[in-house]
Amino acid sequence: MATQINPPRGMRDFLPADKRRRERVLATIREAYAAHGFDEIETPVVEDSARLHSGLGGDNEKLSFAVMRRGLDQAVLQAAADASDPLALSDLGMRFDLTVPLARFMATHRGELPSVFRSLQIGPVWRAERPQKGRFRQFVQCDIDILGESTNIAEAELLVAASDALNRLGLNNCTIRVNDRRILNELLDWAGFSADECAQALITIDKLDKIGVDGVVAELAETNADAAARVREALEGWAPALENGIALGDVLESLPEGLRECEGTREAAASLAEIAEAAAAGGMVTPMVFDPSLVRGMGYYTGTIFEAAHPESGSSVGGGGRYDGMIGRFLGQEVPACGFSIGFERIVDLVAESEDAAGEAVIVLVDKKMPVADVMAIKQRLLADGRRVRVEKRPKNVRNVLQRAVDEGFTHVVHARDAAGDLTLEPLTLESPA
Amino acid sequence: MATQINPPRGMRDFLPADKRRRERVLATIREAYAAHGFDEIETPVVEDSARLHSGLGGDNEKLSFAVMRRGLDQAVLQAAADASDPLALSDLGMRFDLTVPLARFMATHRGELPSVFRSLQIGPVWRAERPQKGRFRQFVQCDIDILGESTNIAEAELLVAASDALNRLGLNNCTIRVNDRRILNELLDWAGFSADECAQALITIDKLDKIGVDGVVAELAETNADAAARVREALEGWAPALENGIALGDVLESLPEGLRECEGTREAAASLAEIAEAAAAGGMVTPMVFDPSLVRGMGYYTGTIFEAAHPESGSSVGGGGRYDGMIGRFLGQEVPACGFSIGFERIVDLVAESEDAAGEAVIVLVDKKMPVADVMAIKQRLLADGRRVRVEKRPKNVRNVLQRAVDEGFTHVVHARDAAGDLTLEPLTLESPA
Repeated sequence: MATQINPPRGMRDFLPADKRRRERVLATIREAYAAHGFDEIETPVVEDSARLHSGLGGDNEKLSFAVMRRGLDQAVLQAAADASDPLALSDLGMRFDLTVPLARFMATHRGELPSVFRSLQIGPVWRAERPQKGRFRQFVQCDIDILGESTNIAEAELLVAASDALNRLGLNNCTIRVNDRRILNELLDWAGFSADECAQALITIDKLDKIGVDGVVAELAETNADAAARVREALEGWAPALENGIALGDVLESLPEGLRECEGTREAAASLAEIAEAAAAGGMVTPMVFDPSLVRGMGYYTGTIFEAAHPESGSSVGGGGRYDGMIGRFLGQEVPACGFSIGFERIVDLVAESEDAAGEAVIVLVDKKMPVADVMAIKQRLLADGRRVRVEKRPKNVRNVLQRAVDEGFTHVVHARDAAGDLTLEPLTLESPA
Repeated sequence: MATQINPPRGMRDFLPADKRRRERVLATIREAYAAHGFDEIETPVVEDSARLHSGLGGDNEKLSFAVMRRGLDQAVLQAAADASDPLALSDLGMRFDLTVPLARFMATHRGELPSVFRSLQIGPVWRAERPQKGRFRQFVQCDIDILGESTNIAEAELLVAASDALNRLGLNNCTIRVNDRRILNELLDWAGFSADECAQALITIDKLDKIGVDGVVAELAETNADAAARVREALEGWAPALENGIALGDVLESLPEGLRECEGTREAAASLAEIAEAAAAGGMVTPMVFDPSLVRGMGYYTGTIFEAAHPESGSSVGGGGRYDGMIGRFLGQEVPACGFSIGFERIVDLVAESEDAAGEAVIVLVDKKMPVADVMAIKQRLLADGRRVRVEKRPKNVRNVLQRAVDEGFTHVVHARDAAGDLTLEPLTLESPA
């Protein structure tokens, strides 16, 4: 026996039951998004290193897997050693998200796409993170983006489509928290943080649900104590309303007094109200609430941001927002953009339990000595539209094989004696899968 | 304007129409293979370098893209430069086929799989080949393999399933050429090639359809002139029968006299006859013919080999064979194996023309100034089961937008004036796509 052999660290194999569930979830998502007018595209798994490391990917750039140039000779290796620059040996990298490739795709194909392009991308991405529970080095992302639409039609279409996809998957009790980066920016400005201090302050506010108001204020005070005190005032003023949930239509009234007069917050509040009204008109049923502490990590967001939560998942099951400055970077021309990414790996776990039978699946037990042509004739007689047929040689311990068949979703068994004989389908009635 | 930006060399983006076709072809293949009892699995895109370079991948190993270790420091870079060994900097590699990962998967999960495992794998692979027409550095492979089955049930099930998949795709006029490596081995042995000379001689015989009998014999003569003369005798003796096509049931009679008595050829001929009978019993309609010059490149084949041809494709649209020694290599235990790989990238081009409408797709033209909520209400009213709806703002040149919609497969247009008004679907009647 060889020693235990595993897939690469932090990466997974998918056995048939898992793979079937993943493909079923993807098919449902694809169907929902296609109905809402999104068009699926695909880009290569690798991109040129220079583009992956252009600053659009934030911290994820550091986690990217680099692909080595082919045919490296001694001189090139020596030069990289002298410069202590391993990236000089790499021309390509594995994508760490689907957004940088989308920006590159738009730069390549702008002329071939409609002026407002609704993109769907589904595919694996790679990050060299320390593997831990629920975090993998290869995982699937599932993004919809609307490019070229500056109005809230983009937000509304994304939210309605994502809500429909979640509902089709049976995840009916999601909630979507919504905020607008402009409100956060005005809050920090009003509190007295300088422009330089804002990025760090946002990272701190993002921790509100983990460390609470006291924790956030203490951390903010390390940078700017006066400003931190005003943030406390705002957060505590908001607290009672937040407890009850603030509808997107009521954001303006909920704002602390000083903030209510800023042009940025007024615009953002009106925008959130418009999004709520439009999403409702579009048939959205997933409830949305305003959450002034929602930040979303990536630096590129410029307006609306949203995050979907599900009661059975500790972390968000999806999220996104508007990021107007980014997509056009490679194109050299501004392209308004807004996106929503479903947390596919989390979703798959949530729908695991609601697995429904996918039609008839028949396991056929045949005699070990049966001629090959007879085996095939029996299989041929049983094949029918949408039915799965697997032939197995009858083992000594039939029960084991049948139990495995039940676990694998088989619904019927046929005990086949000869090619021309009776092929009655008997329901498989052992214990159901655990 | 930025300069022209492209995907990495030899790799492709897929725009919506192409992506839709690819996904439709994959769905059809998946459905066919599931019906025949194959279970889909998935492995990571990268594998440990040591396993990718274990000799199982033949020449493809040289074409693999290597992934750099993370956190390389100066000392490691210097050591690699000193040894002139770039691979010392790599711990992972991108897979160049799906067979090496399958062998690794079996070694990892043998205990969790049925004793005869029918595997389906669909996924991209990467090869650093010189890009040329129809050859890409990232392309999709689509493999079925039966592991653990030593009898011709494996060959018959693979051939029937593959034939069904091709037929479901509308590729009804394929032919499958079949041979058995044992016949080739006996031919070379009978001709007088030494065991050492056989691998090279097989590579030469593989060129028969390109360089003809004279070319093959001349090349073989460089190694062993006497043996080359006997190969000529055999090939010329076969020629008339081959012209008419030799059924798999008639292989023994077709053999040159000297070869007819070898045990290996007799066994192989009986095996081919059994496969033909079993495939027919299994409902296979794709015609199969014996082709003694069929070699298949990979060194790991041990018995039956097959290759599917289509009149509209210059190269094969699929192929495979039995490779009993290989899958068990990482497991340290022999596992009989037989596989069939559909040439997905070629198939996709062949089915391109037979594209049929995928249900109603509606493009909705709305006024540029229409309130967002009204746009969403209109979209909501038009959404229906299986229908795609895309909203566009009415441009000055409506004809351009509608022409593009036709090209993208849209079937209807709605001219929406207001949210509550008439939403009649009008058939799109511009020119069809070129």
